[in-house]
Amino acid sequence: MYKSLTSRAARQLLQPAKATTLGRRHVHAPVAFDWKDPLGSHNNFTEEELAVAETAESYCQERLLPRVLEAYRNEEYDPKILQEMGELGLLGATIQGYECAGVSSVASGLITRAVERVDSGYRSGQSVQSSLVMGGIEEFGSEEQKDKFLPGMAKGKILGCFGLTEPNHGSDPGSMESMAKPHPTKKGYYSLSGSKTWITNSPIADVLLIWAKLQETGKIRGFLVERSQCPPGTLETPKLPHKNGLRASITGMIHMDAIPVAHEMMLPSVEGLRGPFSCLNSARYGIAWGTIGALEDCISRSRDYALTRRQFKNNPIAKYQLVQKKLADATTDAAFGIQAALQVGRLKDEGKVAPEMISMIKRQNCDRALVNARCLQEIFGGNAVSDEYHIGRHVSNLFVTQTYEGQSDIHALILGRAITGIQAFV
Amino acid sequence: MYKSLTSRAARQLLQPAKATTLGRRHVHAPVAFDWKDPLGSHNNFTEEELAVAETAESYCQERLLPRVLEAYRNEEYDPKILQEMGELGLLGATIQGYECAGVSSVASGLITRAVERVDSGYRSGQSVQSSLVMGGIEEFGSEEQKDKFLPGMAKGKILGCFGLTEPNHGSDPGSMESMAKPHPTKKGYYSLSGSKTWITNSPIADVLLIWAKLQETGKIRGFLVERSQCPPGTLETPKLPHKNGLRASITGMIHMDAIPVAHEMMLPSVEGLRGPFSCLNSARYGIAWGTIGALEDCISRSRDYALTRRQFKNNPIAKYQLVQKKLADATTDAAFGIQAALQVGRLKDEGKVAPEMISMIKRQNCDRALVNARCLQEIFGGNAVSDEYHIGRHVSNLFVTQTYEGQSDIHALILGRAITGIQAFV
Amino acid sequence: MYKSLTSRAARQLLQPAKATTLGRRHVHAPVAFDWKDPLGSHNNFTEEELAVAETAESYCQERLLPRVLEAYRNEEYDPKILQEMGELGLLGATIQGYECAGVSSVASGLITRAVERVDSGYRSGQSVQSSLVMGGIEEFGSEEQKDKFLPGMAKGKILGCFGLTEPNHGSDPGSMESMAKPHPTKKGYYSLSGSKTWITNSPIADVLLIWAKLQETGKIRGFLVERSQCPPGTLETPKLPHKNGLRASITGMIHMDAIPVAHEMMLPSVEGLRGPFSCLNSARYGIAWGTIGALEDCISRSRDYALTRRQFKNNPIAKYQLVQKKLADATTDAAFGIQAALQVGRLKDEGKVAPEMISMIKRQNCDRALVNARCLQEIFGGNAVSDEYHIGRHVSNLFVTQTYEGQSDIHALILGRAITGIQAFV
Amino acid sequence: MYKSLTSRAARQLLQPAKATTLGRRHVHAPVAFDWKDPLGSHNNFTEEELAVAETAESYCQERLLPRVLEAYRNEEYDPKILQEMGELGLLGATIQGYECAGVSSVASGLITRAVERVDSGYRSGQSVQSSLVMGGIEEFGSEEQKDKFLPGMAKGKILGCFGLTEPNHGSDPGSMESMAKPHPTKKGYYSLSGSKTWITNSPIADVLLIWAKLQETGKIRGFLVERSQCPPGTLETPKLPHKNGLRASITGMIHMDAIPVAHEMMLPSVEGLRGPFSCLNSARYGIAWGTIGALEDCISRSRDYALTRRQFKNNPIAKYQLVQKKLADATTDAAFGIQAALQVGRLKDEGKVAPEMISMIKRQNCDRALVNARCLQEIFGGNAVSDEYHIGRHVSNLFVTQTYEGQSDIHALILGRAITGIQAFV
Repeated sequence: MYKSLTSRAARQLLQPAKATTLGRRHVHAPVAFDWKDPLGSHNNFTEEELAVAETAESYCQERLLPRVLEAYRNEEYDPKILQEMGELGLLGATIQGYECAGVSSVASGLITRAVERVDSGYRSGQSVQSSLVMGGIEEFGSEEQKDKFLPGMAKGKILGCFGLTEPNHGSDPGSMESMAKPHPTKKGYYSLSGSKTWITNSPIADVLLIWAKLQETGKIRGFLVERSQCPPGTLETPKLPHKNGLRASITGMIHMDAIPVAHEMMLPSVEGLRGPFSCLNSARYGIAWGTIGALEDCISRSRDYALTRRQFKNNPIAKYQLVQKKLADATTDAAFGIQAALQVGRLKDEGKVAPEMISMIKRQNCDRALVNARCLQEIFGGNAVSDEYHIGRHVSNLFVTQTYEGQSDIHALILGRAITGIQAFV
Repeated sequence: MYKSLTSRAARQLLQPAKATTLGRRHVHAPVAFDWKDPLGSHNNFTEEELAVAETAESYCQERLLPRVLEAYRNEEYDPKILQEMGELGLLGATIQGYECAGVSSVASGLITRAVERVDSGYRSGQSVQSSLVMGGIEEFGSEEQKDKFLPGMAKGKILGCFGLTEPNHGSDPGSMESMAKPHPTKKGYYSLSGSKTWITNSPIADVLLIWAKLQETGKIRGFLVERSQCPPGTLETPKLPHKNGLRASITGMIHMDAIPVAHEMMLPSVEGLRGPFSCLNSARYGIAWGTIGALEDCISRSRDYALTRRQFKNNPIAKYQLVQKKLADATTDAAFGIQAALQVGRLKDEGKVAPEMISMIKRQNCDRALVNARCLQEIFGGNAVSDEYHIGRHVSNLFVTQTYEGQSDIHALILGRAITGIQAFV
Repeated sequence: MYKSLTSRAARQLLQPAKATTLGRRHVHAPVAFDWKDPLGSHNNFTEEELAVAETAESYCQERLLPRVLEAYRNEEYDPKILQEMGELGLLGATIQGYECAGVSSVASGLITRAVERVDSGYRSGQSVQSSLVMGGIEEFGSEEQKDKFLPGMAKGKILGCFGLTEPNHGSDPGSMESMAKPHPTKKGYYSLSGSKTWITNSPIADVLLIWAKLQETGKIRGFLVERSQCPPGTLETPKLPHKNGLRASITGMIHMDAIPVAHEMMLPSVEGLRGPFSCLNSARYGIAWGTIGALEDCISRSRDYALTRRQFKNNPIAKYQLVQKKLADATTDAAFGIQAALQVGRLKDEGKVAPEMISMIKRQNCDRALVNARCLQEIFGGNAVSDEYHIGRHVSNLFVTQTYEGQSDIHALILGRAITGIQAFV
Repeated sequence: MYKSLTSRAARQLLQPAKATTLGRRHVHAPVAFDWKDPLGSHNNFTEEELAVAETAESYCQERLLPRVLEAYRNEEYDPKILQEMGELGLLGATIQGYECAGVSSVASGLITRAVERVDSGYRSGQSVQSSLVMGGIEEFGSEEQKDKFLPGMAKGKILGCFGLTEPNHGSDPGSMESMAKPHPTKKGYYSLSGSKTWITNSPIADVLLIWAKLQETGKIRGFLVERSQCPPGTLETPKLPHKNGLRASITGMIHMDAIPVAHEMMLPSVEGLRGPFSCLNSARYGIAWGTIGALEDCISRSRDYALTRRQFKNNPIAKYQLVQKKLADATTDAAFGIQAALQVGRLKDEGKVAPEMISMIKRQNCDRALVNARCLQEIFGGNAVSDEYHIGRHVSNLFVTQTYEGQSDIHALILGRAITGIQAFV
């Protein structure tokens, strides 16, 4: 009834063995476990990807890390950071052409992991520029729009922001109230009005990708609003201060009061929520890599602390079972998270990714990064309260990553719908 | 200071793009999410591996599933199962030659996943035969030992068991008390005495791979004890009844009272704990796949139940958020677990696996399978108490898998030691 | 603006201090911590309550414990147990008169805790008799009904069961299909038809309290069905075998096919779901105490095991941090659970209890008992699989207690509704 | 063999029933569930205690709440707060005499709950003054010391701090390095040197209760150091800035370089760790109440938010199951935590408290407040990042409360030692 494997194996013995079907034939020298890469993911990356990762890692550790503490304390974001990243090709890096690097999705994931290893806020700033705005223009823009914006954005000379979320419609963008009507006086123009909130980079953006309903059709469309073209009083982008996380990024509102927007600044190739959702999916993919970077930094810092800090008979606290368990748990989730993100990255480049896969890795990696970072924070005892140990900052940041671009529960319901075929949002 | 990616990208534009560095250039048809394979792991398997999986799945669903309920109720294990598996090449499947199938470690993982999808006890019986005993003989046995045992074991005609754990030394086999002394009367023989417990298949085994200390050296060695060669009264293998999990497998003790064992039945190529630990690592690798199989069965059954069961205004309970979250959580952990096991399988075949990687996937997949199976069990409400829904059986089994072959906390400390360089067992 | 405490304190200095306002004036001899009663609850019980507890404890440990292993293995429930309990006054113990003991609700909680310390199934059998059936008759029955049934039930000579749950309506009894119509031929009788499932004690019950819709009104009413009065073929109560928990209790279905029930056997004083819900509330209150009893047994057994079992350099495993943490967690939840149940018990007797309070303690104590029992089970390592350590039985039982009489999530939604004023069941 | 309850009940029928043994005789009007007091704890407080609570609540809501946002943002603590509290009798409130209020331990718990409902930092400031310093002087000081300090401290005119923790000895104060030697030149004086860190109120303290080893005996003793008496250069108390929690309290170091301390400023009645541990126990008792206050504020704020915030078809998000479950969980843990703290408070005043009871409630209430506050924070979605919703502040504070005065794991090991008789610290 069933086909025996051994007959297949017999056939196979006549053929040269393929790599993946080889059993463990040869005795290998024992491989050492590397806590920084517990499941040997370096074996999965191409040389180019490893080179990209190294460039990004060096930049982030040498140039970003020294600034982050002051930036976080004072809620300051230096827009030069995007210019520096641009010079290294770290912006819009998966885009082919338009002076972008054209690297693989996995390489792009390694970049966000490197950036978020320093700070989730820095990664947010980069994600907005790369995935949300450049990605949106590349995917849905006209050739003119691409030519006009992408090269400058790739260099970090034109800064972008992504205006989707509204004050009253966080998890449910379909209910947005922003509206583009025919402009009452300027021909060939729309008049764009409405408010957006929690918009990373809005106060410093040169070009704002705004999602609004086109009055004529009632459908959501994307509009590229150039700050320099807005008549006085039509655009305000006040900063939202006093955040308790992502303080090293800048976040603001967008108030639009009848901004005239030329017809040719509307994204031509998309209508409805598919547009912003596609951009968000790219950003969420990056978050799945990034939050593991933040967790890895927490692991590294708490391991160092546990090896240095001595309590009770001069033992390093790394000797205590309750400390080791926290490290083991975190390391495991980081390693699993990398493998899952890697898989989705490969499928992405092969055109085999379903959006729910991205919901899955975004949700899980944010959740596990947050949970483990919190546990690791306990290792620092009372010292955790000092920002110089960095872990408190990661914990505060990771909470925000868990809630933005789809709160964990919302992604659970997206997955639940895909699993059961039934929606449970309402 | 840093090398810009764009220069690299520029170079790259002159070359034909390699698959993995291709950005998402082409608009792909949307890919549908498959809750049975959420992260698209089928893309990672070779055709041969998929064929192996299909053979195993069909056998398990058609031949094992119909027997499991009665077997579990009555604590009965039919040794013919191993013979059936042998006929299909499912035993010792990674071994090259000796009439074994010689498939990849990933294929072997897919086999254990298929078996454990039905029952962890059936997988235990198969793991013992394949990984612990056949694997041990293949890795550490003499050519004569291999020729004598492996072909018959591959066919399921010779049944094996693995005698390591002793009543007082569960997590710490180094303290074992079983001893092989020079036989007082039979030249060329050892006299083997001691007790082993929780030994899967011991009551039905034809050949027992016993780990014991060699008196002369004080070092642990492996001995192949043939039941048919044991003088009356020297070997007893009573069944341990009244188990609350793995009831479809058979478990027993081994009492050895001066069994004469010929010198040539000692495994020649290994000394110390490296021997049994190497075998255990293979088995643990299989458990990491298997427990995800059990979890996947729980997901499938609870999804079906949730779609069928109606409560409150005739809604299928799959519509409720609290139910969907359980399904989303479980599906995520199953998908992540497969990716991690797959990675370790590939590294295994390439000789790049560290034992701690196996500790990591064994621990995490057992833990997550157990936690999620328990949550899914809640979906069944009061009906969960009936064994006909199968999920209670999986939950009980999975608790055992979490405690055997290294309890979760022990693997946490193995990982903790590898991460910190400090042992915390005592 | 605010009244200073010191002025009040000044006044107070002129008066004799009341007990509760006394600061820690006197140096007290240090009080030893008792892991069996971590928050000193014995101080909260009256002498009578302590005496009741002692009677119940002695009986349970001396008479029930020795039978439970065999009963659980074989799914056997000895109805004599209820008779024994009846002789000691443990049935319907809070009822005044009718040969019942008339003790406080706290004393009654201490009884269920003692019984469930042995087995949740034994407690289930007792709860059904006491809270569901006797409680229902006492609260809603006519004087004739009380006189007829209560004294015999108190003695365990008449056994009762409670027929509410139907096969298709577990969490939502309001949708029940059982129906009482005017009897077509017997005047003064109803004709009762329908099916009930998961009914503890149904196969052995002499009197069945059946909830069904009265056809005339469409309202739910309670009917006392005496097995001895049912014409052949009208009542069947088959046992549901092959349970994976509560195996030491007996559970069955009830099939009713036009049973004639005299009008005077309908409970006169209640209509609608208030009737069964009131009974369930009493039972749930008992479960809140009982499950802590089961957890306390798990704590005691795992503590003993941890002190006896030695691993790694001959240390008792109680020395390991990961083991101690499990014991500390479980002990804490047990102690908190007792205080909360105690509070609700006192409020119950004072007529100050809201049903949601009972949802709260039923849910939390079941959940925490289950979670902690599972963690403690890990202490036993591989040995946990043997039923002789008892903890696996408690774990399996406690899962059932979490799902019956309101699954944990259902009680969460009951609480959520009370907290927010909005129902989220559908 | 066993004494039947019914005979006891029979006897009892001849006597007038005592309150606690009364069954639920009378039909009571249904009691409404109050989410602010889910288990009806108001029934457990005396009128005086309720009055104390009301005074404290009014003050905190009306005077503290309006300042907290700015104070937290800017890391500022206004020492006038202690003076205001002093005027209301909220400092050292359990102390009898010395112009203190002399209220019960439960009343004192209600005060800390009211203060921490606003901010854990404000409660920290008050705890230090009341439990650690005033409590220490009252318990172990000479009559002269009490007369000199307590009345002024009760009024908040003399501010105190508690110097125990040293930079290298957080969880293990027994290893402290601070030392008091005979003063080389001033007769009748010690010379006190060493460093302390994470000392709440140290920068503003007038009197510092310093724990140091007395060189002559090697035993730890307490010293009352008056800032005004310290020669220049002997005492420095720099503020520790850039905290990520408890930012509304002030924390600093203490550097002591040969401070001359008169012999009569050493606490006469205690030697060894018993001194500081006794003070810490009082403070921990207060924390157990306080953290529930913070959690209750989180519940109230997230409930309000969930009732106001609308998503998906204009439903308030309070309608969603995943939101209701978070509210139900948090409310339950808050209610259980109050009952446990109440029990320990009563036992404290009766001299029946064991220190481990305080470890238990401190640990559990901190842990559960933190876990639930984090879950509730998710209800706010992206808005949680704004400090104006207050919940992020509570979350950050509660993490600190979980680590100070005994990190959760340390208390687990204290409990583990009490449960098993074996210490597992090293």
